[in-house]
Amino acid sequence: MKRRKTRTIHLGGVPIGSGHRISVQSMTKTDTRDAVATINQVKHLEGMGCEIIRVAVPDLEAAEALKIIKKHIAIPLVADIHFNYRLALKAIENGADGLRINPGNIGSRANVEKVVKAAADVNAPIRIGVNSGSIEKEYKNAIKGEGKELVETTARAMARSALKHIGILEKLKFHQIKVSLKATDVQTTLLAHELLAKECDYPFHIGITEAGTLLTGAVKSAVGISMLLSKGYGDTVRVSLSAPPEREVMVAHSILRSLGLRERGPEIISCPTCGRCTIDVEEIATEVERRLSGSSAPVSIAVMGCVVNGPGEASRADYGVAGGRGKGVIFRHGKVVRKDVDESKIIDELISEIDELKEPH
Amino acid sequence: MKRRKTRTIHLGGVPIGSGHRISVQSMTKTDTRDAVATINQVKHLEGMGCEIIRVAVPDLEAAEALKIIKKHIAIPLVADIHFNYRLALKAIENGADGLRINPGNIGSRANVEKVVKAAADVNAPIRIGVNSGSIEKEYKNAIKGEGKELVETTARAMARSALKHIGILEKLKFHQIKVSLKATDVQTTLLAHELLAKECDYPFHIGITEAGTLLTGAVKSAVGISMLLSKGYGDTVRVSLSAPPEREVMVAHSILRSLGLRERGPEIISCPTCGRCTIDVEEIATEVERRLSGSSAPVSIAVMGCVVNGPGEASRADYGVAGGRGKGVIFRHGKVVRKDVDESKIIDELISEIDELKEPH
Repeated sequence: MKRRKTRTIHLGGVPIGSGHRISVQSMTKTDTRDAVATINQVKHLEGMGCEIIRVAVPDLEAAEALKIIKKHIAIPLVADIHFNYRLALKAIENGADGLRINPGNIGSRANVEKVVKAAADVNAPIRIGVNSGSIEKEYKNAIKGEGKELVETTARAMARSALKHIGILEKLKFHQIKVSLKATDVQTTLLAHELLAKECDYPFHIGITEAGTLLTGAVKSAVGISMLLSKGYGDTVRVSLSAPPEREVMVAHSILRSLGLRERGPEIISCPTCGRCTIDVEEIATEVERRLSGSSAPVSIAVMGCVVNGPGEASRADYGVAGGRGKGVIFRHGKVVRKDVDESKIIDELISEIDELKEPH
Repeated sequence: MKRRKTRTIHLGGVPIGSGHRISVQSMTKTDTRDAVATINQVKHLEGMGCEIIRVAVPDLEAAEALKIIKKHIAIPLVADIHFNYRLALKAIENGADGLRINPGNIGSRANVEKVVKAAADVNAPIRIGVNSGSIEKEYKNAIKGEGKELVETTARAMARSALKHIGILEKLKFHQIKVSLKATDVQTTLLAHELLAKECDYPFHIGITEAGTLLTGAVKSAVGISMLLSKGYGDTVRVSLSAPPEREVMVAHSILRSLGLRERGPEIISCPTCGRCTIDVEEIATEVERRLSGSSAPVSIAVMGCVVNGPGEASRADYGVAGGRGKGVIFRHGKVVRKDVDESKIIDELISEIDELKEPH
């Protein structure tokens, strides 16, 4: 997997670009004006491995709340703003580390100059965010057809829209830019990146927009983000789900881990169970995962129900249990450490074997 | 996405190979000896779009149950057998459409000949299933190292193990073969396919083994299966989850749809919600998806909470709702058909607009 070469931008303390690890971000779902609720959500997300947070700034009250929010959170904050340059100025004034704003949509050149100057003064990057559903009329009119033609005309319109916004910033000698190109389908998203990658070296913020509900949205995001990353596109990742933002962060880390790009937190290897299975693998695996969800230690834990594949797989994981007829065997780095463990005690005994979870004295 | 060219095999009425659409399969989690429970699970899976079903056959009683099970199900049945050639003969006798058995693990050449003859007589294909956790000692001993070296030595051992089993069948002039190469990580799985693809043209049954619990397992499977399919590998798909098999089928179809390879059932496009959102998108989208889960009509339905992206996206979907301040607007093929719909009635009114769900008179 070879990453597309990009320049590096800095969002607060987080470098974004091909020389740096792919960062995970999310967006709060609280009312930004409710600073306490927003802070609590951000702090929870930080604990889950969220490295950049975006908040919606739909009005002045929300822009004012950033001042308090910034004081209580550790990760860089991006203000998400549509159309209103005054909100952008206020967000920067109140400590936003970056903006998500499309300079072509905020009115006069004077407005744009003010926002760009404010951002440049504090080294705040700007994300240009192009979404297949909200492309400007001048490009949208060229979208037509069905199937392959629709994919191509939409992707081209997205890339052109991005280039227009990029051009506005470049004219003002502003280059702290990242770009997102989000469509609701994987093919269009992929092609839009291919087209834009030929035209600029700004880092990409990637994701599939409006991916859907928790499970199907996670699958669509995993497919789309894998395909993008496998082509080298993507320097920071946002998974968009109609679900709590903690899930977005968890899914993003799962995707990066599955691709071998990053490791964070326990990985559960558990068998799908079949007619041979004699312990409740689903329940045990789910409960082990739940109990370990707060840990960032990258350990692998196998939960296997079957004598055919169980011991083999379990012995390759750092820790593991292989069950059979209501009893379990517990493995540790390839060696059996406990035998004949009663099913009701398997979880406790397994967890007590995991060194990485033990608190230091 | 260009598929690797393979020969075609036939599993009951389902052709498998590069000339045919990628089929979705699953495995029952019932005790196969309980024919009624197994039949019910299979019939439910058929309704969800499962096209091939595998059942564990760990003993003679399970092999006998196949006779009853076969009478009541419509999709081809594969008997999953380890080590015991007599169970394979009995499964074929009782109507199994295919076997999952590794001929190198069932003893003498005479045993193998009996199984191959029985399978050939009824045109039942054999799947050779190599799993990274249960490779024969002769190949397992060559697995070593960490990181890249571990990936390479494991993938090579898997491909060699598969070639040994293939060789045994080919010597008996049996070519109705498909092969699976499953590791618990994506990199090893991918490399094993690359190695084996150079040596044979049998179709691949793909999946990531022991992928984990519902959400993280679905993500890992989506990443792995996308990467395989994007390289052209894969003629039939099994998603393995520690979760009900219905979820495996649903996730498999989601993966294929996200890749633009197949369409089945409604697709929900729903926004991730943010501080701008004024209706409960998560609840509405989840409930719409639940109510439509029994339908195979490939319609797209947008559920959007925000005035910024909502109307644009919703208008591109076949049907959609865009909310705002407790009221909704319902779209139908790009046109607003209902305005000011109360939030409590949005789901009912949206669903009543969907032609594809209306029963024919």
